[in-house]
Amino acid sequence: MLPLQDPNAFADEEDSDLVRENKKVVPEPVDFSYIERDVILYNLGIGSTEKELKWTYEGDEDFQALPTYGVVPMFSSMSSLPLDWLPNFNPAKLLHGEQFLSIKSPIPTSGDLVSEARFLDVLDKEKAASVTIIIETRDKSSGKVIFENQSTLFVRGAGGFGGKKTGRDRGAASATNEPPPRKPDAVVEEKTSTSQAALYRLSGDSNPLHIMPEFAAIGGFDQPILHGLCFMGIAGKHVLKTFGSYKDIKVRFGGVVYPGETLVTKMWKEGSKVIFITSVKERDSIALANAAVTLVDPSTKAKL
Amino acid sequence: MLPLQDPNAFADEEDSDLVRENKKVVPEPVDFSYIERDVILYNLGIGSTEKELKWTYEGDEDFQALPTYGVVPMFSSMSSLPLDWLPNFNPAKLLHGEQFLSIKSPIPTSGDLVSEARFLDVLDKEKAASVTIIIETRDKSSGKVIFENQSTLFVRGAGGFGGKKTGRDRGAASATNEPPPRKPDAVVEEKTSTSQAALYRLSGDSNPLHIMPEFAAIGGFDQPILHGLCFMGIAGKHVLKTFGSYKDIKVRFGGVVYPGETLVTKMWKEGSKVIFITSVKERDSIALANAAVTLVDPSTKAKL
Repeated sequence: MLPLQDPNAFADEEDSDLVRENKKVVPEPVDFSYIERDVILYNLGIGSTEKELKWTYEGDEDFQALPTYGVVPMFSSMSSLPLDWLPNFNPAKLLHGEQFLSIKSPIPTSGDLVSEARFLDVLDKEKAASVTIIIETRDKSSGKVIFENQSTLFVRGAGGFGGKKTGRDRGAASATNEPPPRKPDAVVEEKTSTSQAALYRLSGDSNPLHIMPEFAAIGGFDQPILHGLCFMGIAGKHVLKTFGSYKDIKVRFGGVVYPGETLVTKMWKEGSKVIFITSVKERDSIALANAAVTLVDPSTKAKL
Repeated sequence: MLPLQDPNAFADEEDSDLVRENKKVVPEPVDFSYIERDVILYNLGIGSTEKELKWTYEGDEDFQALPTYGVVPMFSSMSSLPLDWLPNFNPAKLLHGEQFLSIKSPIPTSGDLVSEARFLDVLDKEKAASVTIIIETRDKSSGKVIFENQSTLFVRGAGGFGGKKTGRDRGAASATNEPPPRKPDAVVEEKTSTSQAALYRLSGDSNPLHIMPEFAAIGGFDQPILHGLCFMGIAGKHVLKTFGSYKDIKVRFGGVVYPGETLVTKMWKEGSKVIFITSVKERDSIALANAAVTLVDPSTKAKL
């Protein structure tokens, strides 16, 4: 377990005083309870179908959450860490830059979990702040760690506070994951539903940006956009269906996806890793870049 | 309010002793709690889309449950009345024949409700029993009646117990609703999703018949079938979108619908009623017959 209760757990000599003080904040743990129905709802929200009973029917003998369900229990705990101490902080200028998820134990299909969040890195990018939050999610009764998440948020306009410029080495969480110079080993294509965001938001991210045209317009979008964590889930499903189970997944959010668009995931197997890129077919535009999973069983061959 | 706590509330001189005794059973009320997310999940389950924000976004100023949500809170209370006292009772031979729903008060978008069920009519059709259950759903704290449901179940092989042959006049609940001999006043067509049943079942009817191919095969179906109450909801939405709000809806289930098929609802306005028939386009087959709603405002013109 991470020493999340230690106020100095992520102290860094190079941090400015402002960052150092705020890194000491230890927020209250946040509970999350769920039942099998929530797991199915999430799985449907990332495009699982009635043909994939292990993901959509609780009575299936192999019934399971898709691994990216790991971003759901931590979601509400992300806001337990205030960001308004950053200079010129404006929530409308916040972007979800990167997400890393490590699955530490088999995912229960229902349970009572608890998540704790802390600032891991707060970087001064001059015109922006890059904030990496680490969140550990445990089973509430056994204390067993189920998930570790690292979310990197990019806050435009909030730089210039004199902090570190470069983050620590976070292993698979900060790897660059450049695809090798050959054709992909596998490609999976999936058309999302025009109601994908309306369904996915029932798994916890009810930001109106994803359903309300007027709100999306304020954000500068022609129409509501799909949740980044939704298309990360869809792409993770592509990798899982092709190469089998993975123990961690890392993505960089590279662009928007509109509900109804077609996602294309190109995959390259490199040892125990599968590096992937997901793009939007209709606009030939990147959705996920610098992405990779670490396979549970690296000897798995692609199911093509 | 109906006298559901009175053991003799629905006594009938023509009932046989067996029926009379079982009609006296007053089961425990069944609680049902729901939140806005459940309302959206139901509305999506009957095909509402991201364009219909009043049905899919809790932040919309006109956010509401579709009227047929009234069948959801009563669903689990249906099984509070045992049927195994019928001769040769076999649950596999049970068919949902008809459904009547009356909306007595505005539907809360979240709440704590309680439902009470009683046998209203138990008819001996010789080769089958026709059982009509009446269920009243109230707001748990105020006691205000929100819904009355009447569900008619047809139990094949369970007749010959010497009871009544013909049911009481239940008004709109037992009207025959024959369409007039003219072209329909309005027609609405909607393609269901292949995942429609997988989504709809999260609103409470988790019968494997609607998702598991092996189970559907045992029932004699080529593939899992859509819930009858799901396509009743879809058809009710067609009437609502065309003629406006209604205070009750009655349908007879006339045939199966497979998820992914296209439903066509033909409507005839007759005074305060809209009579409708819903069929499956691909197989030119009846799904709902003898169906009607009673409009809240009979002067409403069709939105064509």
